[in-house]
Amino acid sequence: MRILVTGGAGMIGRKLIARLAADANLRGQPIEHVTSFDIVEGEAPTDAPFGFEARAGDLRDSETVKRLVDDEPDAIFHLAAVVSGEAEKDFDKGYGINLEGTRHLLESVRQKGSHPRFVFASSIAVFGAPFPEAIGDEFFCTPLTSYGTQKAIGELLISDYSRREILNGISIRLPTICVRPGKPNAAASGFFSNIIREPLAGEEAVLPVSEDVRHWHASPRAAIGFLLHAATIDLDTVGARRALTMPGLSVTIGEQIAALREVAGEKVVARIRHEPDDFTQKIVAGWPRNFDASRAQSLGFSADSSFAEIIRNHIEDELGGEIA
Amino acid sequence: MRILVTGGAGMIGRKLIARLAADANLRGQPIEHVTSFDIVEGEAPTDAPFGFEARAGDLRDSETVKRLVDDEPDAIFHLAAVVSGEAEKDFDKGYGINLEGTRHLLESVRQKGSHPRFVFASSIAVFGAPFPEAIGDEFFCTPLTSYGTQKAIGELLISDYSRREILNGISIRLPTICVRPGKPNAAASGFFSNIIREPLAGEEAVLPVSEDVRHWHASPRAAIGFLLHAATIDLDTVGARRALTMPGLSVTIGEQIAALREVAGEKVVARIRHEPDDFTQKIVAGWPRNFDASRAQSLGFSADSSFAEIIRNHIEDELGGEIA
Repeated sequence: MRILVTGGAGMIGRKLIARLAADANLRGQPIEHVTSFDIVEGEAPTDAPFGFEARAGDLRDSETVKRLVDDEPDAIFHLAAVVSGEAEKDFDKGYGINLEGTRHLLESVRQKGSHPRFVFASSIAVFGAPFPEAIGDEFFCTPLTSYGTQKAIGELLISDYSRREILNGISIRLPTICVRPGKPNAAASGFFSNIIREPLAGEEAVLPVSEDVRHWHASPRAAIGFLLHAATIDLDTVGARRALTMPGLSVTIGEQIAALREVAGEKVVARIRHEPDDFTQKIVAGWPRNFDASRAQSLGFSADSSFAEIIRNHIEDELGGEIA
Repeated sequence: MRILVTGGAGMIGRKLIARLAADANLRGQPIEHVTSFDIVEGEAPTDAPFGFEARAGDLRDSETVKRLVDDEPDAIFHLAAVVSGEAEKDFDKGYGINLEGTRHLLESVRQKGSHPRFVFASSIAVFGAPFPEAIGDEFFCTPLTSYGTQKAIGELLISDYSRREILNGISIRLPTICVRPGKPNAAASGFFSNIIREPLAGEEAVLPVSEDVRHWHASPRAAIGFLLHAATIDLDTVGARRALTMPGLSVTIGEQIAALREVAGEKVVARIRHEPDDFTQKIVAGWPRNFDASRAQSLGFSADSSFAEIIRNHIEDELGGEIA
């Protein structure tokens, strides 16, 4: 079993590769080799029981992409993307990497003729307001960002390439990942993680929206679980409709804070500073709040059971069990 | 007002250009020039009150496409496409023309910076079975052909390019065009038109499916009406969701035949030969039967009022009022 992970140096990519190293096999077969591809060289996982190669390059370069499938990987996790904010700011880069890059990869697979399992990390950004209270599995995609547009196009391509038996593809729409480890970033959605991660680390965090804001979350651990399940599921049970909204937790900011209080106490919660900001509040109002992800659930994808569990997993996975 | 029509030599393109010649203006402004682009040179409309140029070329060639917008057309009707059957048989040609060609055109417009009205002829092929009894405006796109995939991608691109104010775009999903003039063709959907057109012209026609098959139709006249309305409608009233299912008539084959009897009598109807064919019956079973096109209707798009009217229009427009 040979595996290619694009975006292998990113947060999800690194966690996926670490998990592959821990599992040592996929679909019951031992993993022989993992290639990580990203704009920078990813680090090798510790104690990997397989050969590992980190390549750095640009998905816009079709020759680079072609070489990625030279060794005919059995499974490809296509996680690489220019993120939402950047795709919105840099039109050419967003379309170049998210659309053209994905096409290069799909075409390289087609020319190789090797029919790999192909797992595409899509996003709930394929949806655009106004929404029903809970977005169902048959709701249409009307993205309001170029990033969401590019993800929706990727889903369509992967369904068609699968139907034509060029690859065995599946697209999974990840919820917002929370608690996102690392430094606070500039993403408008950053505060969902910041208000948990920073207080747990003894730092202050700013909450720019009101506590009744509701959003759709999954932990990094759950996200890795989705990717692995997507790589192993019998695709005959999925049928022709290969883009699935992943299950998640629909919680309000108030519920996030209550869970933080339950897990870490009032001292930690007190580090959240409420500074409502109309600009952010307005952006967030256009985001999906809740989904009915019945289809994915019936296909065995499973999410975190509570936000307290998400916080406990974060403390265990990222903080070595310690709260500041 | 300068206008570009891609697919200008096709059935709909020619009818659109003839109508533009008859109207002499669009959005209350006189039409100065029309450029027709197709793989073959389109014929000039008779008595055109505007300059007319027919160009022949390939949408896959970005330089050719770039030159199409050199004169900064105020309105672009993008009708050109490799049709369903061909896009399915020739993977590269379908993606090359329907996806890459459309991207070339959109990018040329972006580089020009001229913000034209952009009307994209999409198709009900963006939908794939299983369907609800009537497909609503918020039903998701899960095409089961490469053609439908390419049209769905075109819709997404045009919505995003519109949102980013590169152009003023709208995608209209045309019903099956019936009665399609000209010779019977090899398209699996050809019989819907053949069983009306051929008997009216004194020829036999084969009906390969049972009379209870239901489908979604619009006349060529209605289709031209949709295109012109799309070119003139205030897009602020349409909002961000720029892909619209056009209204149509949902009728069974039995109702088509009854309308033919009403308009042309039993002698004409007797020219239909019933030869059920499992292969065609199976293909047709996967096609949409009915839509709830409320949104387009509320935006002023209007379809034929009855199948008898469709037949009468065909006799008037194509047969000079004469039935064989």
